[in-house]
Amino acid sequence: MSDTELPEMLAPEQDELDEDDRLRPEFVDAVLDAVRAGDDEEARALVEPLHPADIADLFELTPHEDRAGLARALKDLLDGDVFAEMNDYVREDLIDALTPTEVADIASELDTDDAVAIIEDLEEADQRAVLRALDPDDRAAIEEALSYPEETAGRLMQRELIAVPDHWTVGDVIDFLRHHEELTTDFWEIFVVDAGHHPVGTCQLSWILRTPRSIAIGDVMKREQTLIPVDMDQEEVALRFQKYALISAAVVDASDRLVGMITVDDIVHIIQQEAGEDALRLSGAGEGDINEPIRFTVRTRIAWLVVNLGATMLSASVVGLFQGEIARFALLAALMPIVSALGGNAGTQTLAVVVRALATNQLTSSNTLRMLAREFQIALCNGGALGLVGAVGSYVILGNLQLSIVFAIAMVINSIVAGLVGVIVPVALDKANVDPAVSSAVFVTTATDVMGFFSFLGLASLWGLGG
Amino acid sequence: MSDTELPEMLAPEQDELDEDDRLRPEFVDAVLDAVRAGDDEEARALVEPLHPADIADLFELTPHEDRAGLARALKDLLDGDVFAEMNDYVREDLIDALTPTEVADIASELDTDDAVAIIEDLEEADQRAVLRALDPDDRAAIEEALSYPEETAGRLMQRELIAVPDHWTVGDVIDFLRHHEELTTDFWEIFVVDAGHHPVGTCQLSWILRTPRSIAIGDVMKREQTLIPVDMDQEEVALRFQKYALISAAVVDASDRLVGMITVDDIVHIIQQEAGEDALRLSGAGEGDINEPIRFTVRTRIAWLVVNLGATMLSASVVGLFQGEIARFALLAALMPIVSALGGNAGTQTLAVVVRALATNQLTSSNTLRMLAREFQIALCNGGALGLVGAVGSYVILGNLQLSIVFAIAMVINSIVAGLVGVIVPVALDKANVDPAVSSAVFVTTATDVMGFFSFLGLASLWGLGG
Repeated sequence: MSDTELPEMLAPEQDELDEDDRLRPEFVDAVLDAVRAGDDEEARALVEPLHPADIADLFELTPHEDRAGLARALKDLLDGDVFAEMNDYVREDLIDALTPTEVADIASELDTDDAVAIIEDLEEADQRAVLRALDPDDRAAIEEALSYPEETAGRLMQRELIAVPDHWTVGDVIDFLRHHEELTTDFWEIFVVDAGHHPVGTCQLSWILRTPRSIAIGDVMKREQTLIPVDMDQEEVALRFQKYALISAAVVDASDRLVGMITVDDIVHIIQQEAGEDALRLSGAGEGDINEPIRFTVRTRIAWLVVNLGATMLSASVVGLFQGEIARFALLAALMPIVSALGGNAGTQTLAVVVRALATNQLTSSNTLRMLAREFQIALCNGGALGLVGAVGSYVILGNLQLSIVFAIAMVINSIVAGLVGVIVPVALDKANVDPAVSSAVFVTTATDVMGFFSFLGLASLWGLGG
Repeated sequence: MSDTELPEMLAPEQDELDEDDRLRPEFVDAVLDAVRAGDDEEARALVEPLHPADIADLFELTPHEDRAGLARALKDLLDGDVFAEMNDYVREDLIDALTPTEVADIASELDTDDAVAIIEDLEEADQRAVLRALDPDDRAAIEEALSYPEETAGRLMQRELIAVPDHWTVGDVIDFLRHHEELTTDFWEIFVVDAGHHPVGTCQLSWILRTPRSIAIGDVMKREQTLIPVDMDQEEVALRFQKYALISAAVVDASDRLVGMITVDDIVHIIQQEAGEDALRLSGAGEGDINEPIRFTVRTRIAWLVVNLGATMLSASVVGLFQGEIARFALLAALMPIVSALGGNAGTQTLAVVVRALATNQLTSSNTLRMLAREFQIALCNGGALGLVGAVGSYVILGNLQLSIVFAIAMVINSIVAGLVGVIVPVALDKANVDPAVSSAVFVTTATDVMGFFSFLGLASLWGLGG
């Protein structure tokens, strides 16, 4: 594609991306066509200008069976940064095709946290082979990281950081940074430590740059720091970064010694992932990773569907209790799903709000009762309004006043049940340390199904509607 | 609370927070009790050690009617940072009680983006009054920000940034930063601009600190930069920060001139919010803000429930078509909700995955067909398995072979419908530039309800089960 064909483009490298920073399908096809035609040079020429994150995306958008060929064609472009940006399953696909030495080469280019992300998913034997191929310093750092549980700060942190003693001046710090080639260049703050390597303060680089050389670093640094315990769960780390607007933070061990650093760019995708997981968990879709092998996806989803099948059978048995009424008055069967469905919808609304509020620490013991009162009021308003609409609508269509009144009362009852259960279930699960996003929905919809059928059919029976 | 009473505590300031960084309910109660007893001094003493983010949380956890009293007691502690961290509705509550001059005082302490966040929600007249009370420089910056549409980069950016000409040396940059008191201290990168104020490169502060004074800044900076157009939607800005792991980015106007800077700490809460919105939007719960006045919440949720009421009536009318069969064989009424509910559950799983994949740019035109094939396979597996379980279960309980076969076939059909509709609906809405998270669910559940009832009752009728 030449520039003359696309005169409206400002920069030639924008040709590969659409307005949402996604790789254009025509571009992906062009690369894959070149690979399939054996024209590796053309494929490399096309991909070369891309950012590592976009090369990683290219592999994700490539069908499974073409990935090995693409990797062969792009060999020189596949550096650690590309692997670090890649979806776990797609990365495993590629790593499987590499030798331990090749994996070790890639890992050694990376900061500890990214290297760990690549190595932690390998099988035991492959992991040992890769670790043996690493140089001793890298190996020690990665082995130490792997000794912490998955999804904790210890796995997320990098060992590469700048720590200076508190008696240094700003000038000492600058000279140290200028004269030590081997130091990392990826840092946004430096940590000031005492003789026992305990962090005593944090200093933004901008403060160092704005201060005369003669001033002591201890007078520039901020003493109130947010420290991250090395065994802290990554979700808590993410909330802490977010709450205190951190760019980087010192990680400390059990004796409060500085052992690593976490930077916000490693946290951003965790924040995104943890926040986005609610929708997936509420629906029982597991991690919802579209690159996951199908057999894993089937297994996750079917477990949830079978639990729901059991729950639906429970509500079906409630309907079964009223077979006589239904046989005598089949219209009941047409209206009863409306009552249960609307209860389910209202319950899901409340549930989504409560799960989100719990996940973001906005709902605590201090305001649970207020939340319950709030949802009760909302349920009363919504149930009343829907009951009215439903009653009028069903009366106009069916002309049976008693039926319409029963229909309306059942909707109000079920709306209130939905509002209360939608708060109580997730809060109770959270208190019991069960993830409310994973387990709440089935309880809530079972409650609204059962109460929907029972209140509607029961009232109809009491009123003699099927009699 | 003295240290001797709580010997297990490491730091006294941790008393107010639980292990998840949430304010303890006992602490909130202690503060509110002090305020209610008129002991403002005690309340101030308790709150003083808190981080601004925690003071903001305290106001969110305080019931509406106590907030004004708390604000009076904590007057001196309520600075711009506290307001910047506060939930919009809670902030409005407090701002309403302040004079324009007081609001202007708070706003002038803040970077443009935070000041704009406070001022943009005020009523027209209050906004003008606050703007008049600001000093001319602040006013101009805020008025310019307000001229950009809400939720765009123009509203998010701050004007306070460091831009230097490309002919300067590292030494020039350091001297400039040291000798200009009025410059911002909140920056992580500096921008290098040409004579026309167009950004030509970005330079991390760590690179400046590691480079000798004599080197030209043009030799240190990175030329490939990710620039943010001033009118870019905040969701796109968030995705760009995430994809390219940015800490800060230059914002440019239509003629590519540098007009502002966005830093990642302002993006983190947008990432969190946008990712978390899926669950809320899929359930029709709107923004799901627990501090929103109830009348707004009722309005948002009821709109969704009424749409669903209409959709459920459609599926009820399908049931109505088979009244004769149901009257003759009321068991059909007990089993039919199982078929529709499981279709609904399976459809919601697919929907949650697809909506997430669209939101994170993982699902594009390049892999839509692959996604559809994937979900079809999953639906076939899950539908088959559930159909088998359902058929065996219902045969054991009810002993009607024909009924069980019809039940199983209907489940397979509905599972496939769920999988296909769960992909096609959100992808089509996304192509039509409609938010798939907001509008998909009602289409998907209507499809699975209608197809669930129709396939089950229709097959039963064909087979003469209600005959």
